[in-house]
Amino acid sequence: MRWDVAPLTLPGGFRNTPRPMAEPKENVLMEKLASLCKRRGFIFQSSEIYGGIQGFWDYGPLGAELKRNVKELWWSSMTRMRDDVVGLEATIIMHPAIWRASGHVDTFSDPMCDCLLTKKRFRADQIELQSGNAYHFIGAKDTVSGKEVSEPYAVLLAAGKPPESARKTAAQFYAQRGLQSVELLGERMEKVEGSQRFNPENGSLLTPPVPFNLMFKTYVGPTATEADVAYLRPETAQAIFAQFKNVHETSRQKVPFGVAQMGKAFRNEVTPRNYTFRSREFEQMELEFFIKPDEAVEAITGSVTTVPETGHPGEPQPSWGWQAWHHYWVQERVRFYEGIGLSLDTLGFHRQTPAELAHYARACTDILFKFPFSKRDEQGNVTGDELEGIAARSDFDLSQHERSSGKSMGIFDEELRTAFGKLPPEKQTELKDRYYQARLKYLTKSGVPVAEAGAAAQEDADGLAKGQYIPHVIEPSAGVDRLILALLANAFSEVTETDAKGKSETRVVLKFHPRVAPIKVAVLPLLKNKPELAAKARAIFESLRGHMMAFHDEAGSIGRRYARQDEAGTPFCVTVDFETFEGIKDGPQAGVKDTVTIRHRDDGKQERIAASDLLPWLLARVR
Amino acid sequence: MRWDVAPLTLPGGFRNTPRPMAEPKENVLMEKLASLCKRRGFIFQSSEIYGGIQGFWDYGPLGAELKRNVKELWWSSMTRMRDDVVGLEATIIMHPAIWRASGHVDTFSDPMCDCLLTKKRFRADQIELQSGNAYHFIGAKDTVSGKEVSEPYAVLLAAGKPPESARKTAAQFYAQRGLQSVELLGERMEKVEGSQRFNPENGSLLTPPVPFNLMFKTYVGPTATEADVAYLRPETAQAIFAQFKNVHETSRQKVPFGVAQMGKAFRNEVTPRNYTFRSREFEQMELEFFIKPDEAVEAITGSVTTVPETGHPGEPQPSWGWQAWHHYWVQERVRFYEGIGLSLDTLGFHRQTPAELAHYARACTDILFKFPFSKRDEQGNVTGDELEGIAARSDFDLSQHERSSGKSMGIFDEELRTAFGKLPPEKQTELKDRYYQARLKYLTKSGVPVAEAGAAAQEDADGLAKGQYIPHVIEPSAGVDRLILALLANAFSEVTETDAKGKSETRVVLKFHPRVAPIKVAVLPLLKNKPELAAKARAIFESLRGHMMAFHDEAGSIGRRYARQDEAGTPFCVTVDFETFEGIKDGPQAGVKDTVTIRHRDDGKQERIAASDLLPWLLARVR
Repeated sequence: MRWDVAPLTLPGGFRNTPRPMAEPKENVLMEKLASLCKRRGFIFQSSEIYGGIQGFWDYGPLGAELKRNVKELWWSSMTRMRDDVVGLEATIIMHPAIWRASGHVDTFSDPMCDCLLTKKRFRADQIELQSGNAYHFIGAKDTVSGKEVSEPYAVLLAAGKPPESARKTAAQFYAQRGLQSVELLGERMEKVEGSQRFNPENGSLLTPPVPFNLMFKTYVGPTATEADVAYLRPETAQAIFAQFKNVHETSRQKVPFGVAQMGKAFRNEVTPRNYTFRSREFEQMELEFFIKPDEAVEAITGSVTTVPETGHPGEPQPSWGWQAWHHYWVQERVRFYEGIGLSLDTLGFHRQTPAELAHYARACTDILFKFPFSKRDEQGNVTGDELEGIAARSDFDLSQHERSSGKSMGIFDEELRTAFGKLPPEKQTELKDRYYQARLKYLTKSGVPVAEAGAAAQEDADGLAKGQYIPHVIEPSAGVDRLILALLANAFSEVTETDAKGKSETRVVLKFHPRVAPIKVAVLPLLKNKPELAAKARAIFESLRGHMMAFHDEAGSIGRRYARQDEAGTPFCVTVDFETFEGIKDGPQAGVKDTVTIRHRDDGKQERIAASDLLPWLLARVR
Repeated sequence: MRWDVAPLTLPGGFRNTPRPMAEPKENVLMEKLASLCKRRGFIFQSSEIYGGIQGFWDYGPLGAELKRNVKELWWSSMTRMRDDVVGLEATIIMHPAIWRASGHVDTFSDPMCDCLLTKKRFRADQIELQSGNAYHFIGAKDTVSGKEVSEPYAVLLAAGKPPESARKTAAQFYAQRGLQSVELLGERMEKVEGSQRFNPENGSLLTPPVPFNLMFKTYVGPTATEADVAYLRPETAQAIFAQFKNVHETSRQKVPFGVAQMGKAFRNEVTPRNYTFRSREFEQMELEFFIKPDEAVEAITGSVTTVPETGHPGEPQPSWGWQAWHHYWVQERVRFYEGIGLSLDTLGFHRQTPAELAHYARACTDILFKFPFSKRDEQGNVTGDELEGIAARSDFDLSQHERSSGKSMGIFDEELRTAFGKLPPEKQTELKDRYYQARLKYLTKSGVPVAEAGAAAQEDADGLAKGQYIPHVIEPSAGVDRLILALLANAFSEVTETDAKGKSETRVVLKFHPRVAPIKVAVLPLLKNKPELAAKARAIFESLRGHMMAFHDEAGSIGRRYARQDEAGTPFCVTVDFETFEGIKDGPQAGVKDTVTIRHRDDGKQERIAASDLLPWLLARVR
């Protein structure tokens, strides 16, 4: 779905004013949210009856519907409602060469180190900085047997602590190496500041960091040899690149066009955390939007349009280069989040600096959500955590797969060939030269020897003049599970009501946007034991359920039933009452029959409408 | 969606009359289908640019839509349109204890053997039966060094073949063991019939079969020790059992009720085959429908209803026992397949015999589809291959998880407790005794020592009287990918058209049911270069796309555009032509404006309807 939302004007630099949020409440809110999610069947711990499995989460009945709604909205807004995007659904296990080409085999890793005493494993870059006195030993001797161990070891102590405890720890270390009565050798003290080389729990020296690849590994086929190694995909994007030519050839799409995919991805995170935010099995929604290189755009349209830093740039134009497309997709994605209830003040933005960007990336803008666990910056503002990154990745990905597979990833663009031929020679030279420089940069950065790279880049530049190029790509890449968590956190609110006796009760209302709410409408007979009310409510429910997720509830007082729906986030309750049959009691519509009451979740307000108007009334609000 | 299909009357024994199908065409049809699927973007080989990866298939733009439609129809008919089923979405990687409890770690394996000469691996039970003369050797000697190898070996030759070639093969075998100049020892000939012990390709003896577990294995967390082993789920069902209590407690459902789940599953098949039918990564749609044990039903309703062998039994009744529920679900599932275009004559049925059933299973009925590659039985009838199995699994699964996890999987049923208390004592004794026997059988078959099992079964029987039991389950379990393949095979047809010059051309028409067709409607201006036609077609397209997958095509002759849509399986083409503006030329509706032509895919027939009636006309047919 594409929604009519007024074009955005984000503040310069994409950094919003912070959303006020009281610090001490943050963890309390996450606890309340997790508790509600379990109690109402949104999210369960995977394999809970077996003690759980860290970093894996299941969606219960309401959670599964919420997730389905989010995915369906993404898919329909990305593919069905656009002329220029088609879908793909590729496998999770692919040929391992894909992950060599993408760089994941070599570089998709975290640095790990182990405690030399307890063997406990740490992510080396997440160890808190420590200062104090480090006591170094060069080895130890067994005073009984005379055996010597010449392995260096060290223990960090907070400044002022007596060295005896360091010696005790060191003795344990050498005892593990077969010494019974330990005499330490070569003690030396060193002042240490901001170090990550010691275990914060016991001061023991850690092993030097080694890279730990985050891809889950398995073996395909009956012989588990190195040749059979395969990986669970750590992202869905690469399948789109690997199938680019097949999709391009079968879909009758021309560049610029995109390929969208949703699906599971897996990362063997060392420390899964923040509930479902960073888990080991998660789902992505990724678009690879393929565009012409700027040189091709300029050859065809005479210039490359620049766009303002902020605001939606409107409908795509042939003169758009990568910057305009990147900006467009950031704006489209923000529009999507606004359309499902995440208002601009709940979001944050981070535009990666040149130092943060990978060598092939030209820009990357992260869309953040201000989660309850999000940290504050130096100014005390909540910055937020990433929901989605929109990256301008140049032609890196397709180029990598072309070089690795030996299969051409280039396309032929008749319009470019014709336009290029008509350009003045000096313009031709200028464009070819710019394209040559860009290709040369990619090739040399990718390790191709300079001489070879020069010849290859020249060939590419000559190809451009003939209408050939490898498309560039803009990649909006979103995480489904963290979006679900954002929607839950955003929807969570509590109301406290005091009854006639002065007893007050606090209950939860999940204020989901109707588009994502798991249940769209609950149909309730005012009283259960009145057959005509029950029959009418049932008939209305049956007439709605073919069009949307509806719920029918007869049990308990009407107040309790409203409260249950509020907790599930159902935006509308429809009540069939005596006035439905007897006619409206008073007011301008007195005497009108066959009406129902609609009760709004967020403010509790009620209105009466004709039962026959109910379906279109609801459809207009839940789609 | 639940469709109004007349109740089925399947022939007795669920085995249908065969669908006539010409034998020699079968492989040709599969080749044509695979070729079309690649050409039109239904199915691509995974990782094709890297030479592919065996047993993995990607869905292109049209295939992804087809699959989405099938899954959406299953989900909505199973959950949204039913009061008694809720959804779940669990992770692919779960706690490994789940697969120990389910029996997959111990028994989910195929027997494998290797060729002793070439090391090629075979599935032992799929080797074709061979007969001939087997030449056995007890060892060999190196005539130069005198070294002896006393490893027995054998080679099978077809009857009548001279033994010399067997000796040559044997010499190769011993040469691999370090002998340079081989002298064979202890030659002995044996007549062999129907053996699976030899490599059909070279006659070499195979290793004895060893079980090969089909679960893909990986390691979770940073240390890859045995304690970190986890499996990719080989079925989605187990997550439903593991989360049964969470779902039961949060969904306000009472037994009988079901939990539905769709998702990826993985099996490391030794020989993936028949295109996408048996692949290593696939998707399942599974329902676990939990019911009361028959003894509880009898206690509450006084008797257990038996149902006829054939025909739909109608709406569920409280008196239904497992047989009625099993029969109901077979019929419901057949109704589903009929509702998406698989007519009864394309299906087959197989009811497992007592010998085929697992010890805990009470019945299992497979719904088969007659694929082009399906084999014929002795009578020459195409039997079909499995689309879905509907199993009555007793209380085995929940009982296993209760024993393995130590967490209760039982529920408390107030209605049962009350009813049981009111029964005459002899009836109470009879029901308790039957329940005791059933539990005793489960416990002893599961390896619990007899004395312990007796006490536990007695406790279970006492619990029943107090309203406690572990629910039984009926499991309709379907494969998405094989259903997609069935829909493609079922839809595939060719038409041959001869033009005015006598030139004939054969083209493909995919006759999908409109409910599953990837594109529901194509909107085509008759001519591209008439702005008013183009604008009107575009406007109609825009008005439809929010409601269904629609396509807009201006390029090429109208005949070519129809043909392209036929090949994609689009059931309806809407054409905007001059009569749309100028009014219908002649006939009873002459002069009426603003109409469009609808062209039907399957027979090419055309009809005119008012543009304003188009959306409801289409919705009535595609939903």
